[in-house]
Amino acid sequence: MSHKVGGLIASGKTKLVYSLDDPSLVLLRFKDDVTALDGKKRDVIPGKGSLNAGISARLFQLLKENNVHNHYIKMYDPSSLIVRKLDMIPVEVVCRNVATGSIVKRLPITEGTVFDSPIIEFFLKDDARGDPMINSWHMMALKLASKCEIDEIVELTLRANDVLKKFLSSRGLMLLDFKLEFGRRNGEILIGDELDPDCMRVRDASTGKVLDKDLYRKGASLDEVKKAYEELYRRIVET
Amino acid sequence: MSHKVGGLIASGKTKLVYSLDDPSLVLLRFKDDVTALDGKKRDVIPGKGSLNAGISARLFQLLKENNVHNHYIKMYDPSSLIVRKLDMIPVEVVCRNVATGSIVKRLPITEGTVFDSPIIEFFLKDDARGDPMINSWHMMALKLASKCEIDEIVELTLRANDVLKKFLSSRGLMLLDFKLEFGRRNGEILIGDELDPDCMRVRDASTGKVLDKDLYRKGASLDEVKKAYEELYRRIVET
Repeated sequence: MSHKVGGLIASGKTKLVYSLDDPSLVLLRFKDDVTALDGKKRDVIPGKGSLNAGISARLFQLLKENNVHNHYIKMYDPSSLIVRKLDMIPVEVVCRNVATGSIVKRLPITEGTVFDSPIIEFFLKDDARGDPMINSWHMMALKLASKCEIDEIVELTLRANDVLKKFLSSRGLMLLDFKLEFGRRNGEILIGDELDPDCMRVRDASTGKVLDKDLYRKGASLDEVKKAYEELYRRIVET
Repeated sequence: MSHKVGGLIASGKTKLVYSLDDPSLVLLRFKDDVTALDGKKRDVIPGKGSLNAGISARLFQLLKENNVHNHYIKMYDPSSLIVRKLDMIPVEVVCRNVATGSIVKRLPITEGTVFDSPIIEFFLKDDARGDPMINSWHMMALKLASKCEIDEIVELTLRANDVLKKFLSSRGLMLLDFKLEFGRRNGEILIGDELDPDCMRVRDASTGKVLDKDLYRKGASLDEVKKAYEELYRRIVET
C-alpha cells in the first residue's frame, strides 16, 4: 500500500516530519545536514540523509523483531521512513556502556571505563537551558511522564541496549553509548526518533576506529565523516 | 557516662569531628563560621555554632523518636553532639517540597511551585567539579552505594521529610527543602551530618519570613542572620 505525503508538520536540525493520508502515521525524512554543539557547528554531507535513514530502518526493524516496541513501520524512499505518529516526550534518554563524551567531563570517571552495568541518564530537551540533566522525580514534577511510564522507558532502553550490543558485536562493532527518544501512542510507550551514528557511538571492535558523529565533533573532514557513515551502513545494513 | 574527647579527625567549613574514647562514636563540634558559594563567601557569627548544634540535636532526636535512623546519640556541650561514627557516602541528598534555589535556575519550574510529591536530587560532593548532579546509576557505577542502599536512602529521606514537615508545621513553620548526608555503620544506612538552617529552607508559614541561610546567601547583615537563627532555635528547641 502506498501512502500520500501531506504537509510539513515539524522541522528539526536533521529531520523533517510530514503528515500522511493515514493520520496515525507520519513520514520522517532525513536531511543531509550534520550539526554539533547544539547546532552552532553545521554542514551538509550529500548522501548522509539516506545513510542514516537506512541504518535507522535496519536497527528499528531489529528491535521490532526482538519485541522492543518502536515507531518504525517501513522505508518510504531511501531517505524517508514511515513511522507511527507519537506524542513525543521532550527527554533524551542516554544509555552508556563505556565512559566517553560529557560524562567524563562531569564526573570523576576515566575515559574508556567499561561499566559493570549500563548507566542511564535523562536530559530535558530545552536548548535555552542547555538540555539539563534531570531525574525521574523531575520528570514526574514536570508532568513529562508517570512513574510507570518512566519504568517502561528504562526497561525499553535496557532491552534496546542488549539487542543492539549483541547485533553490532556480530558485525565486529562495539556500542559505547546511544541516545533514544520516546513517545506515547494509545497509552503505550514506544521508541521514536532515529537510531544511527548521529545518536550513537560505535567503534570497530578490533581497531577502535570511530564510525560515528564524534569524527565530526572532533573536526574530521566532511569526506572522512561520510566514509565512516558509509562503512557503518555497509556493516549494519548490507551484511 | 561522660566521654573523653580525643584528636581532631576531620575539619569541614562549619564543623569539626573529634575522636572519642568509644571508637564507635565521634564528637561533632559546630563552628561559628557561616559560608556560601562553595566557601567563597565566609564570615563568623558568634553563637551560630551552638544554635545549629541545638537545632540539629532536637531534629535528629525527633527523627529517632519516629524511627528514622540517624547518627545522633546526645548533646555533649552547647555546640557539640556525640554521634555514631559512620562511613560517610560523599553525596548530598536534597529533598524539595517547594521550588526555590538552584532548581528554578536549572529547570523550567517557577519559584514557589508546590510539588505534588517531593523531588529528590543527588549531588556528588566534589568541589573541583562543582558538586555535579548524579542519579542512581552514577552512584552505582562510582561504587558509592548499592541499589538496595540507594532505595534505603530514598526511603529515609522521604520519611524524614514527612516527620520534619509535620513537626515544623506544628511550630507555624514551612519546610521548603533540605539536604541530608548518609553513612554506613555495620551495614546499615543512617542519616549523618547536620540538620539545621544551614542545610534547610524554613519559612514562617503565615508571613513567609525567611529563617535560614538564604538570608546570608542573599546579603542580609550578620545580625539579621543571627536573629533569624535565634528565632528558629526558639521555635524548634524551646517550645
